[in-house]
Amino acid sequence: MRSPETAPLLLWLNGVGFSYALDGNVTIDDFAVAEQNYQALLDFLSRFPELAARDFYITGESYAGVYLPTLGVKIVNDKTNFPNFKGMAIGNGVLSFTLNYQTMVPLYYYHGIVRDELYQRLSSTCCNGNIETCDILGLFNNLTCKPIISELYDAANPPLNSYNLYETCYLSDNGPTNKLSVIKRGIFHDFHRDKPKRNIKKNVQFDTPTGCIQVNNTYIYMNRQDVRKALNIPASLPIWTDCNDEVTNNYVFRYYNMTKQIEAISAAGVRILTYFGDVDTVCNDVMGAKFLTSLNKTIIGPEVVNQPWTYNGAAKYADVAGFQLKYDGGIDYLTVRGSGHFVPKDRPREALQMIYNFVNQRDYSMPVPQ
Amino acid sequence: MRSPETAPLLLWLNGVGFSYALDGNVTIDDFAVAEQNYQALLDFLSRFPELAARDFYITGESYAGVYLPTLGVKIVNDKTNFPNFKGMAIGNGVLSFTLNYQTMVPLYYYHGIVRDELYQRLSSTCCNGNIETCDILGLFNNLTCKPIISELYDAANPPLNSYNLYETCYLSDNGPTNKLSVIKRGIFHDFHRDKPKRNIKKNVQFDTPTGCIQVNNTYIYMNRQDVRKALNIPASLPIWTDCNDEVTNNYVFRYYNMTKQIEAISAAGVRILTYFGDVDTVCNDVMGAKFLTSLNKTIIGPEVVNQPWTYNGAAKYADVAGFQLKYDGGIDYLTVRGSGHFVPKDRPREALQMIYNFVNQRDYSMPVPQ
Repeated sequence: MRSPETAPLLLWLNGVGFSYALDGNVTIDDFAVAEQNYQALLDFLSRFPELAARDFYITGESYAGVYLPTLGVKIVNDKTNFPNFKGMAIGNGVLSFTLNYQTMVPLYYYHGIVRDELYQRLSSTCCNGNIETCDILGLFNNLTCKPIISELYDAANPPLNSYNLYETCYLSDNGPTNKLSVIKRGIFHDFHRDKPKRNIKKNVQFDTPTGCIQVNNTYIYMNRQDVRKALNIPASLPIWTDCNDEVTNNYVFRYYNMTKQIEAISAAGVRILTYFGDVDTVCNDVMGAKFLTSLNKTIIGPEVVNQPWTYNGAAKYADVAGFQLKYDGGIDYLTVRGSGHFVPKDRPREALQMIYNFVNQRDYSMPVPQ
Repeated sequence: MRSPETAPLLLWLNGVGFSYALDGNVTIDDFAVAEQNYQALLDFLSRFPELAARDFYITGESYAGVYLPTLGVKIVNDKTNFPNFKGMAIGNGVLSFTLNYQTMVPLYYYHGIVRDELYQRLSSTCCNGNIETCDILGLFNNLTCKPIISELYDAANPPLNSYNLYETCYLSDNGPTNKLSVIKRGIFHDFHRDKPKRNIKKNVQFDTPTGCIQVNNTYIYMNRQDVRKALNIPASLPIWTDCNDEVTNNYVFRYYNMTKQIEAISAAGVRILTYFGDVDTVCNDVMGAKFLTSLNKTIIGPEVVNQPWTYNGAAKYADVAGFQLKYDGGIDYLTVRGSGHFVPKDRPREALQMIYNFVNQRDYSMPVPQ
């Protein structure tokens, strides 16, 4: 591997951590987040000017499907401060809300978690017999279809783990740490809240189940006095919670898909990897595939059913790491087989190999040098 | 548990073993198999008359979706010899060829193994934009659609294990034991062969990949002299092979779905369990769900998205064994989460609990008594 002194720089945008507002106003939107992330990068480089010459990549997952492209556009427009921005890797990113909600319905069904009778009822009553072309988002205000969609969207809730259909649903025992429900509430109820006529999800009665991620230990750690002190958290602030309700309820979505941003970043010569754990139902791989199709790029390489990539250069019939498709414009699409929403957690060795080869522009099946 | 003396009798129809024909004519069809299985049961009971008073169940998997119902109809029609026939449990059974081939296409797609562009091309070129209502079988003679369908059906071939998408594809090293390809050849090329105008698959060029099951050891075992002797195999017969080509090529399919048989067996008061490992692509769970819907039975129990069942009576948010739906007429539908085609192999503890509770008419989530 390259020496640490010259290795490319990868920064992982990992959620909001212990964010706070001294004035108590936590209202924020996609525009402000992109700007703050951009300013944070400028700060980072001003503190570590020796890193400015390095190749530079940004990575992230899930809602980073919005955070990263919106940040990436700012970076490509600032060649002065970021002359070496080379690529962006997005894991299970919500590149299109519309496609995500559309694909979610048949995806659930073909994973056996939606009752056939309910699926057929939605199809015949609300979709003219064609689920795949159905404007699911547009039906959220329809009084007949609303309860069917609500029931259907609950299919991947606990006791299933919607982030990985085949994993056990772990829950925290009790208390304020069970807040992953807020993610779902946020997505289903509150996006588009700044645009009343598109505020189509408000009327849908979703269950607000807890998520399946055990966060007790994080909660305990983040609220230790020594940790707060090390993070410079003012003593006046309340305790840390996961997915704070107030923050979620005051977040304003500004985008519904990332086409323009992806196009602009690609046009600037920055390579883009979109990868998807293929048993995630929250931001699913088929949404990703359809999003890339919608860009009308040319597929590079053989026209095969799908091109597998393997861990460690394994032989043809060995375990498959996933599938890959490369597009003109430096845009790659990779699936990670059997992985949920969090690829580096579920498939760490494949994730390392994937990122290493993306950065070094090698075949995705090549082993990472020891 | 009940004593072995009074326990229900379960016979597992486990393939054709070391079948042979002394006259060399291995041509056989569904009618003959049903009759031979029926005669074999009569033979069995004549050798073990003490078992005739026991409750009696038949079970099997895959193509036993045809073997079992066709045998079951013969058994319910013979109350004299089989007064205690109580139930039938079919695992990943091919209850409808038509529904299986139709659901296979979107099922592959929503598991991320079919390239989006190919799927959309099939939809727009051959299916009027609606894959789910598309007569896929009827398109097998269409020169434009044939190559698209061929390519698409190859998506679950090695290096994937079509019997379990998330398992490693194991292969025998070489030689005559690599014959699981024959299964696919048999299904794709040769069924309907006795009805020329419906012989729609002959023209489709499928790859004939090997399957993913390591059978070398079975091959060695079955061809040992002491094993052949114990099984009364005449010395004049050739060696045993898995999925013998000649037998497969001469097998004649007579049924395309099992509606009449399932109806007749249910009407006779015999309970039917259809269970499906939900990551199998060969005989998939959605085909099973659609088949049961097509019977127009009433769903028993709450109208929920799907009703989970759990291993060992686990609490609500513990690991889910699968989902269940019960229909009027004693017909149950169970999925086994994360299991492939062979549920007792992939999920042995869940399989035991499922069969025990089916036989004993208990809630499927109840633990098996120790």
